Amino acid sequence: MVLRSDFSERTCSMARGIGVLGDPWCLLVLRELFYGNGRFAHMRDKLAVADSVLSKRLADLSAEGLITQTPYDDGGRQRWEYSLTDSGADTLPILNAMLLWSEKHLPAPAANAHMTVIHDACGNECSLPDFCTHCGEVLTAENTLWHNYARTAEPAALTGAVRGAAHGAKQ
Amino acid sequence: MVLRSDFSERTCSMARGIGVLGDPWCLLVLRELFYGNGRFAHMRDKLAVADSVLSKRLADLSAEGLITQTPYDDGGRQRWEYSLTDSGADTLPILNAMLLWSEKHLPAPAANAHMTVIHDACGNECSLPDFCTHCGEVLTAENTLWHNYARTAEPAALTGAVRGAAHGAKQ
Repeated sequence: MVLRSDFSERTCSMARGIGVLGDPWCLLVLRELFYGNGRFAHMRDKLAVADSVLSKRLADLSAEGLITQTPYDDGGRQRWEYSLTDSGADTLPILNAMLLWSEKHLPAPAANAHMTVIHDACGNECSLPDFCTHCGEVLTAENTLWHNYARTAEPAALTGAVRGAAHGAKQ
Repeated sequence: MVLRSDFSERTCSMARGIGVLGDPWCLLVLRELFYGNGRFAHMRDKLAVADSVLSKRLADLSAEGLITQTPYDDGGRQRWEYSLTDSGADTLPILNAMLLWSEKHLPAPAANAHMTVIHDACGNECSLPDFCTHCGEVLTAENTLWHNYARTAEPAALTGAVRGAAHGAKQ
């Protein structure tokens, strides 16, 4: 379990989901993995998180089946790169919904401190978390871009949710 | 802030949203308020949560503007009943997304430990968090029912998100 309170035996399935995903660092690790930022040191630096906190979340998310790891060679030493499983990639609407709620209701600390969800096929910003409010197509990791203006000059593809051969090839 | 880590100055708006909503008890309090279960003792009993934890979450959610309180008379003593503001009601897609992810990816501890999102106008179950996958209408607190089979015999309206006069009348 990710959290100290164990909700896995609750009869409410919403509570069971919250028991796995209702944790800030867990959600931020998933954000990094959608970006394809799956190596420990890179994640730690981007998240500004303690090693112990990141290690715990990676272990928890692995145990819950949301992420998987692939070995790669780091100058002769084997390390692990993390990526999303299908279960992990299915959290996209949750992260999109967090982003859209925040953009609507919270103040931004700087002029460029904004982020948008873009449907890649039609290029439009989406105002709801799981379908393109311009053309109606359902959003998936494969057809969605995130544009965090402080992070990247151009909208970023969610490459970390493309599983399988691509990650194996990095060994 | 709800959480110890303060994400309010992060340039990523997703992180700022996660800083407010990435907490299990905060999300479960919002669930109760969507149900219209806004009195302290009733919430505490349904959530099986310590008084101190519930008090802290109510204070945090009030400070962030997601909930509001209205006085009512409890046998001569004034108490407070909580309900969702517009900002709080806008978390519906987040809770729906948690529920739908959980139903798809987590085991259920009992045969009736399931919950569905239903579009009231057409009566169909929805498989995405913010629009009716049967008729296409965007889901709001006003047109959505939740059916937790272990909690209610029939699907429940999200009456706690209906703000204003209805709550004032309870004084």
